[in-house]
Amino acid sequence: MALIVQKYGGTSVGSVERIGAVAERVIATRDRGNDVVVTVSAMSGETNRLIELAGQVSPHPAPREYDVLVATGEQVTIALLAMALVDRGHEARSYTGAQVPIVTDSAHTKARILRIDPERVRADLDAGRIVVVAGFQGVDEHGNIATLGRGGSDTTAVALAAALEADECQIYTDVDGVYTTDPRVVPRARKLDRITFEEMLEMSSLGAKVLQNRSVELAGKYNVPLRVLSSFEEGEGTLITTEDSDVEEVVISGIAFNRDEAQLTVQGVSDRPGVAYRILGPISDANIEVDMIVQNVSKDGSTTDFTFTVHRKDYEQALEILRKQAGELEAREISGDPDIVKVSLVGVGMHSHAGIASKMFELLSREGINIRMISTSEIKVSVVVDEKYLELAVRALHRGFELDKE
Amino acid sequence: MALIVQKYGGTSVGSVERIGAVAERVIATRDRGNDVVVTVSAMSGETNRLIELAGQVSPHPAPREYDVLVATGEQVTIALLAMALVDRGHEARSYTGAQVPIVTDSAHTKARILRIDPERVRADLDAGRIVVVAGFQGVDEHGNIATLGRGGSDTTAVALAAALEADECQIYTDVDGVYTTDPRVVPRARKLDRITFEEMLEMSSLGAKVLQNRSVELAGKYNVPLRVLSSFEEGEGTLITTEDSDVEEVVISGIAFNRDEAQLTVQGVSDRPGVAYRILGPISDANIEVDMIVQNVSKDGSTTDFTFTVHRKDYEQALEILRKQAGELEAREISGDPDIVKVSLVGVGMHSHAGIASKMFELLSREGINIRMISTSEIKVSVVVDEKYLELAVRALHRGFELDKE
Repeated sequence: MALIVQKYGGTSVGSVERIGAVAERVIATRDRGNDVVVTVSAMSGETNRLIELAGQVSPHPAPREYDVLVATGEQVTIALLAMALVDRGHEARSYTGAQVPIVTDSAHTKARILRIDPERVRADLDAGRIVVVAGFQGVDEHGNIATLGRGGSDTTAVALAAALEADECQIYTDVDGVYTTDPRVVPRARKLDRITFEEMLEMSSLGAKVLQNRSVELAGKYNVPLRVLSSFEEGEGTLITTEDSDVEEVVISGIAFNRDEAQLTVQGVSDRPGVAYRILGPISDANIEVDMIVQNVSKDGSTTDFTFTVHRKDYEQALEILRKQAGELEAREISGDPDIVKVSLVGVGMHSHAGIASKMFELLSREGINIRMISTSEIKVSVVVDEKYLELAVRALHRGFELDKE
Repeated sequence: MALIVQKYGGTSVGSVERIGAVAERVIATRDRGNDVVVTVSAMSGETNRLIELAGQVSPHPAPREYDVLVATGEQVTIALLAMALVDRGHEARSYTGAQVPIVTDSAHTKARILRIDPERVRADLDAGRIVVVAGFQGVDEHGNIATLGRGGSDTTAVALAAALEADECQIYTDVDGVYTTDPRVVPRARKLDRITFEEMLEMSSLGAKVLQNRSVELAGKYNVPLRVLSSFEEGEGTLITTEDSDVEEVVISGIAFNRDEAQLTVQGVSDRPGVAYRILGPISDANIEVDMIVQNVSKDGSTTDFTFTVHRKDYEQALEILRKQAGELEAREISGDPDIVKVSLVGVGMHSHAGIASKMFELLSREGINIRMISTSEIKVSVVVDEKYLELAVRALHRGFELDKE
């Protein structure tokens, strides 16, 4: 008898009918002899409805109260799902984050889980009940309701699985697994049966938004086997787990890309300690997230060019900040380009295989694609190219690395 | 510096604009130097929306989960009101019933408040904050969310006022106070400045649905001065309090009536111990509430007629139950009439004034109205008459007892 934690997102519980379908799926899992804990998001559209209400009451809603408000979204879903289970003759109980309790810090609207007391849930499981837990929310040490921020339901599921020492954490989504790349760009993209936590992190942070990064990190940290499956189709999905012997033979798992990047360059700054901080400090103070950072060796021994990428929506603001700083930075020029994309090869096997990066560059050059920036890590090689080349680059790499073949 | 507990119902918080207006009213009370605790209902329509969702998931929703679901209605309102207060520069905090905590028994969907721990609310008041508490809900000893049933927000307000030893509990509604009778029937009906708890109970149970009976009972028990006011107009409303010297002089406070009654009569049953129980036992087992009960002295020394009234919606079911019992009851006949109404004179001063009842009967007889049943208590005289006479009876009594005059 295994203990399975399942998570269903907003689309999967988007209507009364779909909640019924989720109940059937939960019961099927239970009928196969498993204990089941289910985490659910708010019904799709509900969180936005609540946020709009808040916006009508206050342009800057008090964060503590914002959390009290939006936490009702998941509370509605847990109650309806538990009802649906009871209606089908199963014992079930719903719990809000505060009831479990899922204890978080007090950073309202973006709280982090500190710990979960699993006793109450475990007692219900021992009594033969299915337990339904509200995703996305918890309670701080002072009893205030706190939410984990958007997408936090995945994190709730993984944290519950870790606290309960579950055998598997299943994340039901609207896709049937993790693909070698986006099937909308490469129709022959192939579903992966397995992928490591590290690869999934790279895939996910690079735009393959199947899972929240925080949830993958957490699953890796506590070694919770994580499976991505479709709520709407049958199938085994993709299992995300630690590297195993099989994985060694796989060099490249997939190709991720991110359309929403913009590039900023500070040219001709003095190449001395502290320059990176002086450039990025004001950017980060403005709560702009920086993605890639590339600084090349000094060309003339005294000045260097410093390039980084940000989300495209932050481009104008970042450019303005840099321009204001230009004098202080003693930079020769501030430039930027909002029409760039990032394409990355991801694979745990990569670091032990020389020539992967050079083969990537060759494949791109054969298509006449100019590479503007390069950045590498243990398990990925990312390049920045002009936006217009995105599909061409992804397809060339997918074919060149034979990702469409098993 | 007084401590005021205010309660705003669903209509008063029915839109974002109205929540803003409630915030202004709360702030005005605070600016007059009072500490303020506010209890709110769900936005009008919200509870029905949630109940419909439940009905779509299950024909008989699990009561525990039903409470988890509908409790979100008030949670949305407390968050929005607290936001509106913070937005206007005031410190405010919202609390669900579970957070206060308002501890109830475990009778889901119709729980009763066992106790309120006032420490958390008091600490906020001491810190200069306005406290907003979800009405209608609490938490049982096992941490399960429980609701008090419809209209329970009034009870929440009074229970909070009692626990906090508040100076006054103000119930904001869509009427500006308690009237001598329904102004739609008697345009010259007069708003009462004061009324006793006992009179209010009679007025309320007789169809003047300004306040929940449970809240008035509770206010009387803990001697919490209760004031009914309009959310939409300025004014002092009606203060409900214990009998004081002024009240002695008032004989009749008002005329209440109830349109939704039906009458059932069991004729010719043996007049021996246990008959009332044998008649009403099966009625009460079917969860039918019985209002008036009249049994006259035995006409022939051995059999009697037993008459009672029920809500009109329960008439058919009650009649059927009685007919099934007829043989066992050895009754001569079972009869009934669904087209009757109850009209009552209410007044604390009444019991010390002989002649009130006879004046009432005289006023009715002068209008040719036949009285079908009579029932009296310390502070009221109720008569049952044909439905068609309702308005005539109420107007004749209102004028005859000069209730339109100060």
